[in-house]
Amino acid sequence: MGGVLSVYASVDLGGTNIACAVGDTSHSIATLGERGPEDVLARMVAAIQALVPQGARLEGVGVGVPGLLDGERRSTLFLPNLTTQWRGVPVAERLEKALGCPVRLLNDARLAALGELEFGVGRRVSDFVFLTLGTGIGGGVVLDGKLRLGPFGAAGELGHLTILPDGPPCGCGARGCLETLASATALRTAGLRLLQDGQAPRLREMVGGDEAAVSTETMARCGDAAIDAAIDKAARYLGIGIAQVVHTLHPQAIVLGGGLAKLGDRLFGPAREEMLRRVRMFPADEIEILASEAGENAALLGGFVLAERGVR
Amino acid sequence: MGGVLSVYASVDLGGTNIACAVGDTSHSIATLGERGPEDVLARMVAAIQALVPQGARLEGVGVGVPGLLDGERRSTLFLPNLTTQWRGVPVAERLEKALGCPVRLLNDARLAALGELEFGVGRRVSDFVFLTLGTGIGGGVVLDGKLRLGPFGAAGELGHLTILPDGPPCGCGARGCLETLASATALRTAGLRLLQDGQAPRLREMVGGDEAAVSTETMARCGDAAIDAAIDKAARYLGIGIAQVVHTLHPQAIVLGGGLAKLGDRLFGPAREEMLRRVRMFPADEIEILASEAGENAALLGGFVLAERGVR
Repeated sequence: MGGVLSVYASVDLGGTNIACAVGDTSHSIATLGERGPEDVLARMVAAIQALVPQGARLEGVGVGVPGLLDGERRSTLFLPNLTTQWRGVPVAERLEKALGCPVRLLNDARLAALGELEFGVGRRVSDFVFLTLGTGIGGGVVLDGKLRLGPFGAAGELGHLTILPDGPPCGCGARGCLETLASATALRTAGLRLLQDGQAPRLREMVGGDEAAVSTETMARCGDAAIDAAIDKAARYLGIGIAQVVHTLHPQAIVLGGGLAKLGDRLFGPAREEMLRRVRMFPADEIEILASEAGENAALLGGFVLAERGVR
Repeated sequence: MGGVLSVYASVDLGGTNIACAVGDTSHSIATLGERGPEDVLARMVAAIQALVPQGARLEGVGVGVPGLLDGERRSTLFLPNLTTQWRGVPVAERLEKALGCPVRLLNDARLAALGELEFGVGRRVSDFVFLTLGTGIGGGVVLDGKLRLGPFGAAGELGHLTILPDGPPCGCGARGCLETLASATALRTAGLRLLQDGQAPRLREMVGGDEAAVSTETMARCGDAAIDAAIDKAARYLGIGIAQVVHTLHPQAIVLGGGLAKLGDRLFGPAREEMLRRVRMFPADEIEILASEAGENAALLGGFVLAERGVR
C-alpha cells in the first residue's frame, strides 16, 4: 500500500507580495497587481504548484485576501489595495479548476486571527480580539474558541471603529476610523510631518535626512519629544478602540500583531492605560494586552487551518 | 398523586421601583433605596411571597440588578443608582435563605436582552445586539442564540462605548460615553437647556412652562427646529455606537428598547443613516434596526428564563 503524500497549501495575497507555503516550505513572489486578477491568479497557481513535492497530492488550499468577500466567501468583492478589477472575481472557483482541489478564502486579518487561535495566544486563551496594526488595521474576534465571521466574514473589521467622529478622512469613506489614527501608516505620516516641520531633530539625524528611512521603529528609538508624543497619541487612540471592544465583549485578551506591534510596551503601555481609563463600570485589569505569538506568519499559519478544516 | 403547583418568580430591582412577577401576576413596590440593602431585600422577599399562590411551591427566582455583579453573579459589586452599601452584598445567598429556593442574578439590561431573545426579536433572529435607552443606556449581546456574558456578566456594557473621547463627563468616570449623548436623560437635558435659552417656544407652549412636563415624547412632538436638531444629534451619536458594534460583530439586527425607543423612526431613521455612513467596508443595509418586541416587560420576562434555566 504505497501511500501518496497529502499536502495542503496556504497563500497570503498582499498588495505587494504573494506569500505561498506548502508544508514547511514557503516563498514569496511580487503581486504585480497592476496586471489584473487573471495574471495574479495564474502566477499564484504556478507559485503553489512549484512548492508541491513531486508525487504528492494537493488536498486543499487556504487563501488570505486583503479585503471583502461575498457571502459564500468564494468571490472577491472589494480589495482596496489592489485594482477595482477584483470586484466579483470567482477566485475560489478559478483556483479550484486550476489546482484540482478545494480552495477556501478568508479576509487576511481574520486568517491571521485564525492562525493566532491555533498556533499563538489561542493555545491558552479562548476569548480574544486580534488586531493587526500595519498599513491599515485589520481584526478578528475569537469567542469561545471560534472565529466569529458574520454574513460576509466581516465581523472584526476593527480598523474602522469610529474613534473621532469628525476626525481625518479614511480610505473607506468615513471619518476618524481607528486606522487613520493608530495604524503604522498613520503614525509614520505623523512622524514625517514633524520631521518636515523641524520638530524631530534627532530623528532627522538618525535617518540622515532620508525620509524613506523614517519608520515607526526609528521613530520609537529617536527620543524626540514631539515624536514620543505622537506615539503616545496613537497608542491612546488604540486604547479607545480597545475599550470599545472590551465594553462590547469583555474578552480575556487583546492580541496585537502587525508591524506597529513591534514597538511593544512603548505602544501597549499607554494603550492599556487609556483602555483602563475608559472602562470604569467593571474590573478590566485582568484583560491582557499581548503581542501576537503566531507572529509575522500568523496569516500563513491560519491558511493551513483554513485549507484543512475551514471555519465553522 | 395530588401534584403541587410549581411556580417561578421574576424580580426587576430598579432605582425607583421593584417589579415582581409570579406566573402572570405582578406588582410593583417602591425601592426606598435609602433604607439600605437589608430593608430592600426584606421587602423584596415579602413582595415575592405575597404573589405565590397558597399551596404552590416556589422553584426558583431570577433577579435583575441595576449594576455590576461579582464573577459568580451571586453578590452585588456596584449599583450606581442605589447606595454604596450594595458593595459586596451576597444577594443570591440572602434571598435563597429567605425563600428556600435557588436564586439567580443578572444585570438588568442583560436580563432584558434575555427576555428579548426568548419572547421578542430572538424568536426569529439569532444574532442581535440589544440596547435599552432610558435613564442610562444598557445593553446585551446575543450571538448564535446565546447571551454573551463575559467574566462579570458585563459584556454588552454599551452605554459606555466612547463616542466623543473628550465629550461630556459620564457618571462612570470616563468622558463622551454613549449614554451621555443618546440616553433619554441626555436628550431631555438638552431639551431643557434649549427651553431655558428660549430656543424652544413651541415646547414651552406645550408644557405650559412646566419644566417637569418636558419629556422626550413632548420634545418629539413639539416641532421646534432646535429640538428637532437635538433629537437628530442624539440619534446620530446612537448611530455611531451602533456602527462600532456592527464593525465588531456584524449582527443581524440591533434591537432598541427603553423609553427613548418610543420615538421610533424619528430616532431610528437618522441612527440608521449614520450607521450606514460609518460602515463602508461591507454591505450593512441588511442589518435591521428594530424596536424591542418584548417591550417594557423584557427584563421581567427574562427573569423567568433566568429563574428556570439560567444562562449558559
